[in-house]
Amino acid sequence: MANSTAHDNLRKICKDIGPRLSGSANAQKAVEATAQMLRDAGADRVYLQPCMVTHWERGAKKKGYLTINGEKTYLQLTALGNSEGSGKEGVRGNVVEVNSMQEMHELGNSLKGKIVFVNIKMNPTYIETFKAYSESGVGRRSGASQAAKYGALGVLVRSLASNIDEYPHTGALQYNDSFPKIPAVAISTQQSEMLSKSLRNGATVDAYFQTNCRMLPKVLSYNVIGEMRGSKKPEEIITVGGHLDSWDLAEGANDDGTGCVQSIEVIRALKALGLKPERTIRAVMFMNEENGGGGGDAYYDSAVSKKEKHLLAIESDAGGFTPRFFGINGTKNIIEKLSSWSSIFEPYGIESFKEGHGGSDIENLRKLGTTLVGYTPDSQRYFDIHHAATDVFENVSKRELDLGAANITALIYLVSKYGL
Amino acid sequence: MANSTAHDNLRKICKDIGPRLSGSANAQKAVEATAQMLRDAGADRVYLQPCMVTHWERGAKKKGYLTINGEKTYLQLTALGNSEGSGKEGVRGNVVEVNSMQEMHELGNSLKGKIVFVNIKMNPTYIETFKAYSESGVGRRSGASQAAKYGALGVLVRSLASNIDEYPHTGALQYNDSFPKIPAVAISTQQSEMLSKSLRNGATVDAYFQTNCRMLPKVLSYNVIGEMRGSKKPEEIITVGGHLDSWDLAEGANDDGTGCVQSIEVIRALKALGLKPERTIRAVMFMNEENGGGGGDAYYDSAVSKKEKHLLAIESDAGGFTPRFFGINGTKNIIEKLSSWSSIFEPYGIESFKEGHGGSDIENLRKLGTTLVGYTPDSQRYFDIHHAATDVFENVSKRELDLGAANITALIYLVSKYGL
Repeated sequence: MANSTAHDNLRKICKDIGPRLSGSANAQKAVEATAQMLRDAGADRVYLQPCMVTHWERGAKKKGYLTINGEKTYLQLTALGNSEGSGKEGVRGNVVEVNSMQEMHELGNSLKGKIVFVNIKMNPTYIETFKAYSESGVGRRSGASQAAKYGALGVLVRSLASNIDEYPHTGALQYNDSFPKIPAVAISTQQSEMLSKSLRNGATVDAYFQTNCRMLPKVLSYNVIGEMRGSKKPEEIITVGGHLDSWDLAEGANDDGTGCVQSIEVIRALKALGLKPERTIRAVMFMNEENGGGGGDAYYDSAVSKKEKHLLAIESDAGGFTPRFFGINGTKNIIEKLSSWSSIFEPYGIESFKEGHGGSDIENLRKLGTTLVGYTPDSQRYFDIHHAATDVFENVSKRELDLGAANITALIYLVSKYGL
Repeated sequence: MANSTAHDNLRKICKDIGPRLSGSANAQKAVEATAQMLRDAGADRVYLQPCMVTHWERGAKKKGYLTINGEKTYLQLTALGNSEGSGKEGVRGNVVEVNSMQEMHELGNSLKGKIVFVNIKMNPTYIETFKAYSESGVGRRSGASQAAKYGALGVLVRSLASNIDEYPHTGALQYNDSFPKIPAVAISTQQSEMLSKSLRNGATVDAYFQTNCRMLPKVLSYNVIGEMRGSKKPEEIITVGGHLDSWDLAEGANDDGTGCVQSIEVIRALKALGLKPERTIRAVMFMNEENGGGGGDAYYDSAVSKKEKHLLAIESDAGGFTPRFFGINGTKNIIEKLSSWSSIFEPYGIESFKEGHGGSDIENLRKLGTTLVGYTPDSQRYFDIHHAATDVFENVSKRELDLGAANITALIYLVSKYGL
C-alpha cells in the first residue's frame, strides 16, 4: 500500500499510450512498455510470445440519427466490435423495438426491411452485475444475426450499461455465417430510454446510420510474459494475468489496464520483499481478449506443445475495484484448501474463496487440469464505464487497485510455497 | 435497486442546493428540501427539531504563498474550520516542519515567531482508512493550539487525504483556550510533499497567508425528522440518520448527503413495500455534525426530556460506497443476535456485524443504553475526497448508494419486528 508501482504503471498505459485495440500501433507500444515494466519490476526473464490476433478497425467517424414523428435527433452511437460497416450509403428503416430475443423470434418475418432496436436492460436487481451483463449480453452478441435472419437491415443495441447516461458502450458481436452480416451499433442508455418511451407513446420512428468499420486479416502480435523462476519446483507454473488490449473508445483503464499492472506488481512486490517463490511465477499480459482471444489461445497452445505443468492461473479482468472474493474453478478439495487461508486475507478485504469463474484468457488451461482463479473486486461500478469513453485512469482508485494487487500477490506466494 | 429515489434526492441536495455549512442560507434550504423529501417518501409525520448550531464563516477568498529560496509559489490552501482569521495583514514567518506532535514538543520554544508545517501523513498501510484519519487527525485538530503554545504565528497543516493531489481538505480544529488562537490552513498533499522535499534539501522557506474566517454567535437551526409510527410498540424508537450540514468547499455528497438520502429511502422503501413496522422508525437529518454537534445534542436532550425509549440508532456517515459491514456499539448478546442475521445480508454485500462505532450524531444516545450501529461501506476512496472540493455528486455510484440503503432498510425492518 505504501510502495506499489501499479498506479504509476497504469498512468503510463492509459495516458502515455491510451486505447490499445488488437492489431493497432498502440497495442504494439503497450507490448513494449509493459515488457519494460516487467524488467523494471525485477522479473528474471521477460519475453514476447507470438500470437495471431483479430484486426478490426472502426474506420472514419460514424453517424446516425432518429426521425421521431418527423423530428431528427442525432444518435449517441458506436459501432459494435467486429461488425461490418454499413457501406457509404448507410442503412435506413423503420424502427421496431424488441425487449428479448424471444420477442425478436415472435416478430419474425415482420422485421424484414426494418431496423431492430434491441432494448434489453441489465437487470438492476442482480447484485453481481456480471450476471446481468451475461444475461442481457445476448442482444449485443447475437442480436444482429438473429435480426438479419428475418431480413432486418441493421440493429441499434441498447448499451450494456448499469447506469443511464449519454455514452455508448461498444463490445464484440458474433455474426452467424448463415445470415447477412448487417451493421450493428450500440446506442446510449439515455437515448434507449427516450426511444423506447417514444415508441410506447405510438410515435413513428425511422433510423439512419452509417458505419465504416471493417474486419481485416489477422496480424501477428504478442503476449508479454515476465517470469520469476521457482527455486525448488521450477517446472510447476503459476500464471497471473490481465489483458493488454482494450477497446478503442477510451483508455482501457479498468478493462483491463488494472489487471496488467496488478500482475506486474506481483513480481515487483515479491522481489522487493526478497521472497523467492519455490514454483515458477509468470505475469502475463494477454493480447486480444476483447475481440478474438488470440493471446489466450497462443498461451495454451504453447503450454501444450512444451508439455508445461500449470498448477494455478489467476486472472484479474473485472476492474481495479475494492477486493471482494476469489472465485475458483477447481476441485472441491482445492476450494477447501484455499478457503482454509481465508483468515489471512479477510483483513485486506477478501471476504471469501468460493466457486467461480477464472477468466477468459486462462479458460483454456482448465483442459490441462489447472485450477483457475478469478480475482473478483466489487462489481457495482464496473458496467457504468465498461467499454465506454469513461473507462479512464481517473476512474481507478489507487488504494483499491493496490489492495487488489496485494491480495493477488499473497495468494500466489502461498500457492508457490505450499502447492495445491 | 430498481426503484430507489436516493440518487435523485442526492442530486437535488448536491446540485440544487450545494454546500450546506451550519448557519448558512443553504443549510436552511436543505432543511426545507429534505422535509419535503420525507413527506414524499410517505412518512406519517415530518417535523423540525430546533437546535443551536455553530456559525462559522470562511469569509472572503484567502490567499497565501511560500517563498522557497527566494522563489514564490502560491499555496493550494483552505482555512481550517472554526479557525480565526489572520487579520488583514496576514501572517508571515519562516517555516519549520514537524511530522508528529512529539516532534512539535521537542522543538518547543524554538517555534517562536515561526509558521509550523504540520506534516503528518495518513498511514497508507492501514486498510480501514478511518483508523489512519483518526490517528493523523491530531495535527488538524490540535496542531494550531500546540504550536501557539510555543509562540508560533500560524500553521500549515497537511490535508488529511489518502491520495496525492492539488485539493486542500478542510475540517474542524479545536482551539485550546489557554493559548492564542492563531490562524490555521490546510494545504494540499501535493504541495505538502513538495514543501517537505524542499526543506529536506536544505531550502530556506518562508510562508505568508491571510484568512478572513470568523466565528459568529450560535444560531437557531433544525434537525429534520420523518417518522413511521410503530403499529405495536410505538414507544420504542429506532433512529436512522445522516447529517445534513456539510463543509462549504463542495457539495457534501459523500459527507453526508448519502447518509441523508439513505435514511429517507428507508421510509420510502418500507412504504412502497407496504411493510408496517411494529416499532417507531425515525429518519433524522442531523444538523451541525461537522463543526459543533448541535443537532446530535438537541436530539439527545429531547429524548431525555421526553423520556423516550431508544432501542437502536444507525448512522450512515462514512460515504455512499459499497457495503462492507455494520459496526455495533452494544452488548455482546446484541452483537450475537444481530450477527445471527448475517446470512440474510451477505448476498447484498454486508460481510459481517462486528463491534464498532455508531456515529457522532447518535453517540450521546449510548448514555440511554441505546444500541448504536455504524453503517460501514468500503473506506478506500473516502479520504480522497473528504472535506475537499471533490466531494461531489459525480463521485457517488448509484448502485453502491442504493445497496447501502437496502441493507440499512433490511436491518431496521428486522429490528422493528423482532426487537433486540
